[in-house]
Amino acid sequence: MSPMRTMPAGTPLGDAFHLYDTTLRDGAQREGISYSVAEKLAVARTLDALGVGFVEGGWPGALPKDTAFFARAAAELDLRHAVLVAFGSTRKPGRRAADDPQVRALLDSRAPVVTLVAKSDRRHIERALRTDAAENCAMVRDTVGFLVGEGRRVFLDAEHFFDGYAADPDTALRVLDAAVGAGADVAVLCDTNGGQLPGRFGEIVAEVIARTGFRVGVHCQDDTGCAVANTVAGVEAGATHVQCTANGYGERAGNADLFTVAGNLSVKLGMPVLPPARLQDLTRTARSLADSAHLPLDRHRPYVGGAVFAHKAGLHASAVKVDPLLYNHVDPARVGNDTRVIVSEMAGRASVELKCLELGLDIPEPAALARAVARVKELEAAGWSFESADASLELLLREEFSADAADNDADDDTDGAGRAAGAGSRGEPFVPVGYHVVERHEPGAAVCEATVRLRIPDVRDTAVWATAPNPPSAAEAAATAAGPGPVEALDAALRRALSPLLPWTAETFLTGVAVRVLDGGPGRAALTRVHVTSRDAEGEWTTVGVHTGLAAAGMHALRDAFAYKALRARRQRRPASSLSAADAS
Amino acid sequence: MSPMRTMPAGTPLGDAFHLYDTTLRDGAQREGISYSVAEKLAVARTLDALGVGFVEGGWPGALPKDTAFFARAAAELDLRHAVLVAFGSTRKPGRRAADDPQVRALLDSRAPVVTLVAKSDRRHIERALRTDAAENCAMVRDTVGFLVGEGRRVFLDAEHFFDGYAADPDTALRVLDAAVGAGADVAVLCDTNGGQLPGRFGEIVAEVIARTGFRVGVHCQDDTGCAVANTVAGVEAGATHVQCTANGYGERAGNADLFTVAGNLSVKLGMPVLPPARLQDLTRTARSLADSAHLPLDRHRPYVGGAVFAHKAGLHASAVKVDPLLYNHVDPARVGNDTRVIVSEMAGRASVELKCLELGLDIPEPAALARAVARVKELEAAGWSFESADASLELLLREEFSADAADNDADDDTDGAGRAAGAGSRGEPFVPVGYHVVERHEPGAAVCEATVRLRIPDVRDTAVWATAPNPPSAAEAAATAAGPGPVEALDAALRRALSPLLPWTAETFLTGVAVRVLDGGPGRAALTRVHVTSRDAEGEWTTVGVHTGLAAAGMHALRDAFAYKALRARRQRRPASSLSAADAS
Repeated sequence: MSPMRTMPAGTPLGDAFHLYDTTLRDGAQREGISYSVAEKLAVARTLDALGVGFVEGGWPGALPKDTAFFARAAAELDLRHAVLVAFGSTRKPGRRAADDPQVRALLDSRAPVVTLVAKSDRRHIERALRTDAAENCAMVRDTVGFLVGEGRRVFLDAEHFFDGYAADPDTALRVLDAAVGAGADVAVLCDTNGGQLPGRFGEIVAEVIARTGFRVGVHCQDDTGCAVANTVAGVEAGATHVQCTANGYGERAGNADLFTVAGNLSVKLGMPVLPPARLQDLTRTARSLADSAHLPLDRHRPYVGGAVFAHKAGLHASAVKVDPLLYNHVDPARVGNDTRVIVSEMAGRASVELKCLELGLDIPEPAALARAVARVKELEAAGWSFESADASLELLLREEFSADAADNDADDDTDGAGRAAGAGSRGEPFVPVGYHVVERHEPGAAVCEATVRLRIPDVRDTAVWATAPNPPSAAEAAATAAGPGPVEALDAALRRALSPLLPWTAETFLTGVAVRVLDGGPGRAALTRVHVTSRDAEGEWTTVGVHTGLAAAGMHALRDAFAYKALRARRQRRPASSLSAADAS
Repeated sequence: MSPMRTMPAGTPLGDAFHLYDTTLRDGAQREGISYSVAEKLAVARTLDALGVGFVEGGWPGALPKDTAFFARAAAELDLRHAVLVAFGSTRKPGRRAADDPQVRALLDSRAPVVTLVAKSDRRHIERALRTDAAENCAMVRDTVGFLVGEGRRVFLDAEHFFDGYAADPDTALRVLDAAVGAGADVAVLCDTNGGQLPGRFGEIVAEVIARTGFRVGVHCQDDTGCAVANTVAGVEAGATHVQCTANGYGERAGNADLFTVAGNLSVKLGMPVLPPARLQDLTRTARSLADSAHLPLDRHRPYVGGAVFAHKAGLHASAVKVDPLLYNHVDPARVGNDTRVIVSEMAGRASVELKCLELGLDIPEPAALARAVARVKELEAAGWSFESADASLELLLREEFSADAADNDADDDTDGAGRAAGAGSRGEPFVPVGYHVVERHEPGAAVCEATVRLRIPDVRDTAVWATAPNPPSAAEAAATAAGPGPVEALDAALRRALSPLLPWTAETFLTGVAVRVLDGGPGRAALTRVHVTSRDAEGEWTTVGVHTGLAAAGMHALRDAFAYKALRARRQRRPASSLSAADAS
């Protein structure tokens, strides 16, 4: 983090236009969202990678989790484009700004920019804050002045501005005046209850700019379904700062959607609000942030939804074939919603080709490529996600590309639930014969314990039989072990069973387990997706498993984790000539 | 049905403004929607009951199901407000309208109004329709003239009008001219690919009205997230006919949402577009039509969603208590919705007070209230979420408010993991002594199985010992059962163990299990949160449990589920005087 930088970096518009994200503060008010500190850090990094100018991280001093976030952000976050912002309120009535612990917490957050919220509707000042307009202005003036004096850049969020302006424009404008007079450099007009329509909204923004000459921003809620339209109307009227949230997350009907606003400003109004070539990351970013929020991405969300470039009506489909732009309002590739390097359910041939290049695999002949694309699509539709599981993807692609893959339907799965990658052609070091995991709670004791029985197909690979004169046709192993969770317990049992026979398994460690339960919908069982991250002296790799049972999903991911290690070990031991085509490249 | 009526009945605006619904035709293009004929009839009745002016029922002649719908509608539908509309296209190039089977099907539908779709973008005329502008106009003129001659009222949907008008305004306007000249009485400007923004959209509507003097309607898609805003902008510019769909259903990003548009026009622009007192049916209608589409109603949909009048932030909740309209853009009762307070990690005292009122609990003395707020905050910080678990919240609040709660730290938990709500003061019907869940995978078999051992503290509550002379001090029960997942297996085992002793447990059913795994971050175990939804003859309730183990989290939620049922049963059996303070209110 560069604590001194207060300007966003990287868009052609520079500081002249602010794309400001408040997912971590206002977005988190959506019911059902509850970010951990680690998740907040990940969200900030993802927004920064997209090229957003400002990332509002939370309200230090008011929420312990947000205080913790800013402490870790100062140490751990290294943002390239975005400036980190702390949100908070002005000093309390009748207190000095410097003495207000909440104002002090904003300073202590070390965020270079502070957005202060202030009331601008006389009724709120009198009935909610229980003070008068003069003291309200003094609170704004003092707090802004204090923070500016301490070297912070300050933006003012004028809460309920539009209602306030309609009821008593002078009171509303005086609040902006107090803030800007004390050194705030953006006056953000907030439609806090979301009741505005774009026509009048745009008129008010233009009026305020004409009457004050201030730099104006807008913050819109979606209670009339017009948050995006109001934001755009604000920009057309002269606002140069827009506050949005990922996928429109927010209280009640939500906020203006960052991705729809960025799409509209970029594509429709020709404003380069993101750094060059980042618009095509829009869809990927929307999905990643939906994942962080533990929510499915709405398939119907403009620009980024899975359904928004699909055509159902026969009427359209034929015409789309003639000319895609006849029925699409934008080329989907421009917002990353069609061809993507990330292999997903919309994966096409081109994505898999690009992925092969990325993984160092030779592009195979067309039939094998088509098979791989079909396989990936089918698995992703069934809940698998290879986006962050490159090791599983590489195993899958190698298997599909190997000459005998088309005939190889051998499946060693013990319950026939459809293992993603059958054993055999991938050279898996072991195959589970049977296993179970038990979570037991008895008085005074709670335990999670796994038992595995394994077969090691290639006995010559084992330490015991490598040089023995009469090896058996296959080796078996079994063990029981406990762990903090079912996947960790399975991992411990596998290692206990394998390490005497395959000592190299002790060179790897489990560094992360991520579990996500995907709702099944009416009448369908929920699926569990497990991502496992492993590490050895050379690096880290991630694998994935999906199953209705958590233990089975974990076993899938762990099998891939060991298979990937074995694959790498083989590649290093043997000369290039004996490897698959991919290794020769 | 009144086949001769072509005017909507019942709103103060009469025929001067058309609220036109196309859920059954354009809405049905949303992926996943597939109405049966019976469902289409029910949807038409529901829309009519709300007071919509026109209900477009489908495309007779093109879709067999729609042909069947109109046949049954003529016999079975008796609409009070709405006029039924058949949708279709003009005659094909080089054919007489009277001889075109598709045009004939429109007549045969017996719908009193026909909406004809016609191309108005030169590129579509030439590249998709493969004819020229003159023949396109002739197709419109002939077909409108033929249908008007047959006694039908005709509206024209000018497809891709906005793109066509931008590229070649004369061609676009000539199509409207051909239709109106032949007797169509509304020229509907369609933003078919949904690419417009409201500013320019309104300008074009105003220009077209100024240049033609025609009655103009609008039809908007949501690909820029502006379908509602464009519709409103169209009305502000002079359009007097708006085409919408229930809950915004439609292809890609969807259509303008009927309910949001009706809400905005009624509440914000003061236009009585629904019959008197029908606005308050908005929420109920939205839910009913979501049900007909077999989709959950989006909780964040303006006016009608379950979350749009809920308040999470402590900041707001305190002010909401002072005056609900300070933070709501409309009184929720006006649109038949209600206000809810989400008790969450941001909860303050005011949120808990409001929640008490909602749950019918008396506001307790300040110390108990403070204790409850602290408890909720602490649990939410530890991963609990009461937002959608009102039953667990009610149990927790009752426990905190009971006189002895402060002293009651008894915890019957078997593993000391910190049960959210200790047994005892809540009158739980049973306490687990021990339990375990196993997920087992063996060749040819996969099973998830739970075993529970329970103690029933109040033996006089059991069917067996209720009237026995010498009951034991406590009853015990145990059972094993399987299920598709660990929580379902536990639920089955609990019921098997409990039903002989507590027959009332068989009156409840498990209707939903939602599992979320909360990432623990480096060095911290992941937590699992389970929400369980239960149902009996009287209604549904949701409870929550959090633990590092999935089975333990599920057991917490299931304990609360049965405790809540027991609480309700006690409240119904006993006189108010023997209940807690809350029941006396």
